[in-house]
Amino acid sequence: MSETVNKPVVGIIGTGAIGGFYGVMLARAGFDVHFLLRSEFCAVAERGLQINSAVHGPLTLHPANTYSAAEDMPPCDWLLVGTKTTSNVGLAPAIIQAAKPDAKVLLLQNGLDVEDSLRPLLADSLHLLGGLCLICVHRDGPGLITHQALGAVNVGYHSGPAIADAARQAIVEEGAGLFRAAGIDSQAMANLHQARWQKLVWNIPYNGLSVLLGAGTTPLMADADSRVLIQALMAEVVRGAKACGHDIAPGYADYLFTMTEKMPDYWPSMYHDFRHKRPLELEAIYARPLAAAKAAGCELSRIDALYRSLCFIDRGNL
Amino acid sequence: MSETVNKPVVGIIGTGAIGGFYGVMLARAGFDVHFLLRSEFCAVAERGLQINSAVHGPLTLHPANTYSAAEDMPPCDWLLVGTKTTSNVGLAPAIIQAAKPDAKVLLLQNGLDVEDSLRPLLADSLHLLGGLCLICVHRDGPGLITHQALGAVNVGYHSGPAIADAARQAIVEEGAGLFRAAGIDSQAMANLHQARWQKLVWNIPYNGLSVLLGAGTTPLMADADSRVLIQALMAEVVRGAKACGHDIAPGYADYLFTMTEKMPDYWPSMYHDFRHKRPLELEAIYARPLAAAKAAGCELSRIDALYRSLCFIDRGNL
Repeated sequence: MSETVNKPVVGIIGTGAIGGFYGVMLARAGFDVHFLLRSEFCAVAERGLQINSAVHGPLTLHPANTYSAAEDMPPCDWLLVGTKTTSNVGLAPAIIQAAKPDAKVLLLQNGLDVEDSLRPLLADSLHLLGGLCLICVHRDGPGLITHQALGAVNVGYHSGPAIADAARQAIVEEGAGLFRAAGIDSQAMANLHQARWQKLVWNIPYNGLSVLLGAGTTPLMADADSRVLIQALMAEVVRGAKACGHDIAPGYADYLFTMTEKMPDYWPSMYHDFRHKRPLELEAIYARPLAAAKAAGCELSRIDALYRSLCFIDRGNL
Repeated sequence: MSETVNKPVVGIIGTGAIGGFYGVMLARAGFDVHFLLRSEFCAVAERGLQINSAVHGPLTLHPANTYSAAEDMPPCDWLLVGTKTTSNVGLAPAIIQAAKPDAKVLLLQNGLDVEDSLRPLLADSLHLLGGLCLICVHRDGPGLITHQALGAVNVGYHSGPAIADAARQAIVEEGAGLFRAAGIDSQAMANLHQARWQKLVWNIPYNGLSVLLGAGTTPLMADADSRVLIQALMAEVVRGAKACGHDIAPGYADYLFTMTEKMPDYWPSMYHDFRHKRPLELEAIYARPLAAAKAAGCELSRIDALYRSLCFIDRGNL
């Protein structure tokens, strides 16, 4: 009983593949987790959440604490946001509703500066953080999630009330600690921008090429030309990051490349968005890094070509 | 009668959209034109060639001088080759068979150095030339051709017997004269490499993007992002040409861009090749220009990204 009292209350805003997976892992580790759902509320309220994990085996959370409205949720210490970046502004009312006054809001999203549009809509007392998930996971249906591989979350601090850097970093450590307590590899990052650029080394090549070439990671890694293209795109991300003041560790791109080679065939979320005619996350994953690099005097030509192509595809897909 | 005697005998090797169109135009202008066909021989022998031209109206050539084997053709003064660059080496026997000893062989093909693989297979006495066709034309079926717009042919000299430059240029002028006599705009180019690079300013963006984005020229010219990408690709071609010693006239890329805006919706031949699961002309149109520019110290990143993507698509399409 005392254990539960000490553990923070966690709210999951957007119970898709990411929110569902980490929420279930935290709930199974004993955290008090509450899931906000929209269209899938009835199905998940009835059947709970099921994860078919190649790493952890089949995981079921039933019943799950499910809500169709944020005002019904208990005040949360941590809010994990697993929705698309394209809907961040629209999430503010739900986040405000579910958050304790000094809550930590963690955006589990890819791309650059995804917190910026949300920040002005939140009270200054709320801590805003970003989390980068290196994971192969997808949603198969309401409350049904397949976890193919990996799972690590890198956490960094974005903004919040005026407190010392050390206090901010303690919050980041607390966030990473949540995941680690649930058996998930997690690192507290000293710089969120750095963490976001680092994750882009993977997302920029694979997300876009999965849509452009209609291929998952296995065929992309099996073809000599797409391999060269992926490596060239990764090198451009590293160059863009450097121009913006973030040195990606030497060998990190190679590490991701080799890691992807060993992964099961994985279709990035952008491909699923494309296939289901949802807007692609082009702003966060392509437009902002390109603009940031350009402002720093760095042209990323291949990424620009990929981005323009994806814009054309996205516009014709909606 | 005397007019026919003075006019050269023209052989068409590969009676697709290009060979068929120019062959019919020349035949209607009174030239003695002979068409070599393979799989479509019977249909064209029976029904002749029909061009539905938005510029010249409906044109019919019936009967046409059709042949299923080069050895049945009369010795030709000019051979116009309208096949894909991917089959050039295989054409040598037919060209040798149909050519007079001092014949002029004109490759109506896009891309760089398309003559190089054929040259060593031909007798030294044969003149080899290249022709760049700025035309919107496609094949609808055996002997059925739709001509949507344009038609100009730029001719340049590749190689041949040791004769003075002036004599070579006279042959180029003679080639351009053939087309002009048939009412087709044609220019004798002083430098074939220059002419080929110049044509690539159009082919590199539009051929590849039609396959990559599944779009003809009208949607490509209607979208803000594909427009930016097309202009950036054109600028890279101009930069590559310059690095290789060929200055493209200032404003030429803009001229092609504006011209394409005014064209009817056109699907480049590469798209038709893709759709019919034929090999794409990636070597001539992308790999060689990229290699030539690279050898001159010039990296063309967007073209490289497009090329690698097309290689992946091509490999999965066969």
